[in-house]
Amino acid sequence: MGIFSKDIKSLDDLFVHTLRDIYYAEKQLVKALPKLVDKATSPALKQGLESHLGETKNHVARLEKVFKMHGVEAKGVDCPAIDGIIKEADDIVGDVGDKEVQDAAIIAAGQAAEHYEITRYGTLIAWAKQLGRPDCAEVLEQTLQEEKSADAKLTTLAEGGINRKAA
Amino acid sequence: MGIFSKDIKSLDDLFVHTLRDIYYAEKQLVKALPKLVDKATSPALKQGLESHLGETKNHVARLEKVFKMHGVEAKGVDCPAIDGIIKEADDIVGDVGDKEVQDAAIIAAGQAAEHYEITRYGTLIAWAKQLGRPDCAEVLEQTLQEEKSADAKLTTLAEGGINRKAA
Repeated sequence: MGIFSKDIKSLDDLFVHTLRDIYYAEKQLVKALPKLVDKATSPALKQGLESHLGETKNHVARLEKVFKMHGVEAKGVDCPAIDGIIKEADDIVGDVGDKEVQDAAIIAAGQAAEHYEITRYGTLIAWAKQLGRPDCAEVLEQTLQEEKSADAKLTTLAEGGINRKAA
Repeated sequence: MGIFSKDIKSLDDLFVHTLRDIYYAEKQLVKALPKLVDKATSPALKQGLESHLGETKNHVARLEKVFKMHGVEAKGVDCPAIDGIIKEADDIVGDVGDKEVQDAAIIAAGQAAEHYEITRYGTLIAWAKQLGRPDCAEVLEQTLQEEKSADAKLTTLAEGGINRKAA
């Protein structure tokens, strides 16, 4: 949400601004996820990340739908939070020596991104309802459920053996 | 986790590195939270943030305890993720015209920080157990529960009237 906040006067302004924040974030993740897919060695992790890349592209399309429903232009605003999360992911998985340790690092990086999205979608849904836009809330809710599910799948992969192999 | 990841060879290295990442993050939050307390207008929000500032100082002390238990130096490493989250918070709550809208923005900013901490502590606890350090996991678990509780309290405040006043 890197902006001059004096432009934000109403909850509607805040809602639209945060939609643009997560729109930018989702588009950055579409670019970042293939690198994690590439670096992952566990076939289950690779497949899980690939499948989530497909979902992420769909999240971008859903946000464009919400922008249209709400009658505002679909555009992104800088989001230093997701930039920081992706920078940490790049640093950590860049060149970890041990492959299993790298998979554990990739899971942690993926979960940090999921949690950022979970908090932003949760906020957007609450605000959409408050603004009398349950239709927008419903579309955003579909994405929130997919983000929570992606986070839970990463936990299952970690507990199901990747951390044990890394230890 | 801004580092040269070639220094990370084992899950233990990754655990220590991530402890240092969240140690830096908690210390940055100790500096950032008073600004949010200052800007909040709802007395319940102000009090909730003040109380969480006290908890956050305790999280720093708990991390120092875990560093000691694990026999490594307590120090921070750059964490671009929390820097980004705090930058967004500064931008958004800097000068929002309407006080109720500003309170809604403060809640969203606080929840973004909580979710970053929730994901990192969740990861650290899983790794501590895998590394045969259930004692460290137990200390970290106390903080995780407080972060989850702080996030839930912010949701309650939002749903309990702050978003309605802002709309």
